[in-house]
Amino acid sequence: MTLKIPVVRDILAANERLAEDNRRIFRQAGLFVINLMSGPGAGKTSLLERTIDALRQEIRMGVIEGDIQSSYDAERIGQKGVQVVQLNTGGSCHLDGNMIKSSLDALDLGNLDLLMVENVGNLVCPAEFNLGEDMKAMILSVAEGDDKPLKYPLMFQESRVLLINKIDLLPYVECDVGKMRERALQLNADLEIFEVSCRTGEGLDSWADWLRQRVSDRKAELDGAKT
Amino acid sequence: MTLKIPVVRDILAANERLAEDNRRIFRQAGLFVINLMSGPGAGKTSLLERTIDALRQEIRMGVIEGDIQSSYDAERIGQKGVQVVQLNTGGSCHLDGNMIKSSLDALDLGNLDLLMVENVGNLVCPAEFNLGEDMKAMILSVAEGDDKPLKYPLMFQESRVLLINKIDLLPYVECDVGKMRERALQLNADLEIFEVSCRTGEGLDSWADWLRQRVSDRKAELDGAKT
Repeated sequence: MTLKIPVVRDILAANERLAEDNRRIFRQAGLFVINLMSGPGAGKTSLLERTIDALRQEIRMGVIEGDIQSSYDAERIGQKGVQVVQLNTGGSCHLDGNMIKSSLDALDLGNLDLLMVENVGNLVCPAEFNLGEDMKAMILSVAEGDDKPLKYPLMFQESRVLLINKIDLLPYVECDVGKMRERALQLNADLEIFEVSCRTGEGLDSWADWLRQRVSDRKAELDGAKT
Repeated sequence: MTLKIPVVRDILAANERLAEDNRRIFRQAGLFVINLMSGPGAGKTSLLERTIDALRQEIRMGVIEGDIQSSYDAERIGQKGVQVVQLNTGGSCHLDGNMIKSSLDALDLGNLDLLMVENVGNLVCPAEFNLGEDMKAMILSVAEGDDKPLKYPLMFQESRVLLINKIDLLPYVECDVGKMRERALQLNADLEIFEVSCRTGEGLDSWADWLRQRVSDRKAELDGAKT
């Protein structure tokens, strides 16, 4: 892989500059921004639907849906009546700062408190690319197994939050949530962990409370900076 | 993404030459080679374990385990008493021709009929890189949902076989296998589809029969070419 290393370094440096531009735009608009990542089918879109249902009365939310192709997820989110943009990467395995930047014109940022970006379903590549977010959050489904932190460490290291999803499937799969937690915390002792089921709704109140607090803290911080 | 396109093209062309070298080596050794791909936790290693159990009396099998880091999977496969090599990509999101080439010295190819390569768990990037394999096979777990062909089309287009795994979970997840099949076949009408559960063993006989036939056809073809 020596061939690729200098190229990758250039791409990451260029991305970092674009992410910084986005960060400035988000701060000016007073937005809290989450970059939501997981492997395919772990439940990113379902978590967004549940989060919108829980917080829509208090928080103005928008979503950027990242997919290689299709607008399936944006249509799902659109039904919730929040601002949504579909970003198609056309083959690329992750979102990057430039893609996010180019999608911002389609959103009315001044009318949002919380922007949630759903990354391409991929437990590897998205972890390397900052988008200008305040926080990376990842989802791991119990159906994926408790060995995933051992095998995909970077995403666990980069994330602030781990949502262990589909806990309603625990009786039917071989997954030790205690081991999963322990392995994740060995990689990142500061990881905030929530055990949830986006199907039954279990555990989602704690997540919504925690997120509400983050958005509120962020607002207070920005208001403080202005005075 | 204009930035990356020429670079990606160079990398793919360089990879194709290395894959071709591997293909020559595999043919000389009379090997049938499978490149097994899926998202994280869809069941690649479990499928390998089941396949080894089903065919070990008739077919000499070896495994190359690809992971970003850890040797967890190679240890699992090693317990089956077959030849196994662990390849750690050190961060990279897919295997490539060069990695495979560099791992071949660790295998006694003359004593193998079937080489199974387990790619990094990723439903996107591995589909772009040929390794010199005879056939790409992919696994999709029903827990991932029936919309995956719409969102990750390339892997379905590149694969010869789709194994729909974890069908024992169907009563507990929202997944319409009919829709999943239909969407996959729209992308690739030649796809051979098996519905299996690596947990209960259901459906795996058909897969083993089909694979036995491919290995045998390949042997006959190679023997024919020699005479």
